[in-house]
Amino acid sequence: MIEPIKWKDNNIVFIDQTQLPVKLKYVKCRDIDTLCGAIKKLKIRGAPLIGVAVGLGYALAGINSKEKTFRGFKKDLARASLKLRATRPTAVNLFWALDRMEKRFDTSRLGLWPRSKNIPRLHSGHVVRVNEASREYRNAIAQIKKAILKEALDILKEDKLMCVAIGKNGAKLIKNGDVILTHCNAGILATAGQGTALSIIYEAKKQGKRFKVYADETRPLMQGSRLTMWELIQKRIDATLICDDMAASAIKNKGVTKIIVGADRIARNGDAANKIGTYGLAVLAKYHGIPFYVAAPSSTIDKDIKSGKDIPIEERNRDEIIYTGSKQTAPIDSKVYNPAFDVTPHSLISGIITEKGIYEIKRFRRI
Amino acid sequence: MIEPIKWKDNNIVFIDQTQLPVKLKYVKCRDIDTLCGAIKKLKIRGAPLIGVAVGLGYALAGINSKEKTFRGFKKDLARASLKLRATRPTAVNLFWALDRMEKRFDTSRLGLWPRSKNIPRLHSGHVVRVNEASREYRNAIAQIKKAILKEALDILKEDKLMCVAIGKNGAKLIKNGDVILTHCNAGILATAGQGTALSIIYEAKKQGKRFKVYADETRPLMQGSRLTMWELIQKRIDATLICDDMAASAIKNKGVTKIIVGADRIARNGDAANKIGTYGLAVLAKYHGIPFYVAAPSSTIDKDIKSGKDIPIEERNRDEIIYTGSKQTAPIDSKVYNPAFDVTPHSLISGIITEKGIYEIKRFRRI
Repeated sequence: MIEPIKWKDNNIVFIDQTQLPVKLKYVKCRDIDTLCGAIKKLKIRGAPLIGVAVGLGYALAGINSKEKTFRGFKKDLARASLKLRATRPTAVNLFWALDRMEKRFDTSRLGLWPRSKNIPRLHSGHVVRVNEASREYRNAIAQIKKAILKEALDILKEDKLMCVAIGKNGAKLIKNGDVILTHCNAGILATAGQGTALSIIYEAKKQGKRFKVYADETRPLMQGSRLTMWELIQKRIDATLICDDMAASAIKNKGVTKIIVGADRIARNGDAANKIGTYGLAVLAKYHGIPFYVAAPSSTIDKDIKSGKDIPIEERNRDEIIYTGSKQTAPIDSKVYNPAFDVTPHSLISGIITEKGIYEIKRFRRI
Repeated sequence: MIEPIKWKDNNIVFIDQTQLPVKLKYVKCRDIDTLCGAIKKLKIRGAPLIGVAVGLGYALAGINSKEKTFRGFKKDLARASLKLRATRPTAVNLFWALDRMEKRFDTSRLGLWPRSKNIPRLHSGHVVRVNEASREYRNAIAQIKKAILKEALDILKEDKLMCVAIGKNGAKLIKNGDVILTHCNAGILATAGQGTALSIIYEAKKQGKRFKVYADETRPLMQGSRLTMWELIQKRIDATLICDDMAASAIKNKGVTKIIVGADRIARNGDAANKIGTYGLAVLAKYHGIPFYVAAPSSTIDKDIKSGKDIPIEERNRDEIIYTGSKQTAPIDSKVYNPAFDVTPHSLISGIITEKGIYEIKRFRRI
């Protein structure tokens, strides 16, 4: 079983996804800085997986904290949270997971804190010098560490269940003879479980349905060719790789019947940010009169955001486009536009498939 | 001045375009097999340039022929023509140029052939053994060689003039403030002159118009990032490189006002085959309500073909997608779909810009 992330001996162990498909390399991560670097460099990527990773990262920071005072411990965790929040801006699962971890931190200390009269109820800004080294006090910090680790492992566990639920909900839409196009990687490697968009494919396969998949390679970082194709081949799915600019031809000439992708953040009105290229596919789907589905856990829906306009879009390094592999494929002095995501307006989305069900935003119809 | 192809000391000298943008390497080509290899490997590419190249190739085959009999000489040329015709199937300019060369061969021998009674008018299938080594006879072959070389150099010369004419016709469409998106390379490196789609940009620049250009990198072979960006930077055009899957975002967020591309073959009804990815861009143009233009010499219009359905589409090697540069970016056993071209239906084309003028097929309107 492929496990892109796990918790082992108080460390995070993850697959370095930049090495795939050539090498399946597990990396042991002992500190938050390594984890942040791994997220920034897309060694760990995929919105749900990033959520799980930062949850574990927060717990790891807690466990690693040598602070003996509550104030110090709290500061360590706050610093870790800030670092983790600064890794990537678009995937809301990152912020969702950290909000949840921080909430757990807040609630855990309420119940757990020693009630001894000697040790006052603590809050930040309150200098405490009395009895800080007491066994009871140290014990309370240990209890909080345990509680936040449990929370992180809960997020991981729930993610696995959520993947299966999305898969089962979405599989209802798959018919024998379908030709499904997907973009980037919304699979095992994007989650702690069996994926979102690809989970639908895996569940449909389990149900004995016959269908074909086309996978966009997904420039510039090739998550489609490196990760999705690797997964689909492992799972014995009938999959064909194309370059992104071949999608229109695949739809027209290879009879694509459905497009299914993941999402990194969904606004309240249903506008969905996902890997760059998704919006163009949605336009192609509309033109060709085929449905376009977004599969994502409900934690990807950002209720604070009204429409896609407010979703921050990460722009990444120019070298990702100027070099392909290690080969220079553009003039060094090229000006570059390298957004990592785009926003698909809800008007182009036939339905959003979550663990709770399928939400139809607007009936698709051939334009 | 960049000259992607020229005739020098009875050899073809061409830029090996696979080496760009890292190296500007000129290759001397002394025989037809080297030329065929260069066309197959896209060292020489771009429909008009391929036309010029095979014209010169035909002439080179003639010059290289050591045959002293007309029959042998004719066979040599026929063999060369077949080889050149087998290099790539889609660009019609290749067949157009060879048809023209063969016609010239046919007409040249009519006038030039020695009228001496000793040497009968020759035609294939007629075994001639008399006087074949005569000076007059040899002279006639030399005259044909001269005539077909002149024809090839005429094609080259006309191509240069045609580029300027397309540029001037198309430049009328460019307005100050335009943001032009282009795909693949329809520039200097695709012709013997200053290009087709990019010629419009160069002429507009000469006329002092202010505008910006976005260039799709054009997977899998990166003609956009390697060649178009290289040209545009040389010509000091304000150009920005994007991956193909960023085109929709560039149109929406960077205010693209026009898409202009080249063509490899245009059917009688206006359907146009061009580099893979073009069709998808045309759909995006329609959705966003911006015009989509095809720029090509009139020799790209194939009057024998009624609609785009009849245009043969080359499918290329899977390794072009599985490896990026020399790096493996997909599982070795991936199934691949790798069409080199697609067909844009005339309903999505706002106009075809040729050296003779702009042909409006259908008024574009926002869908």
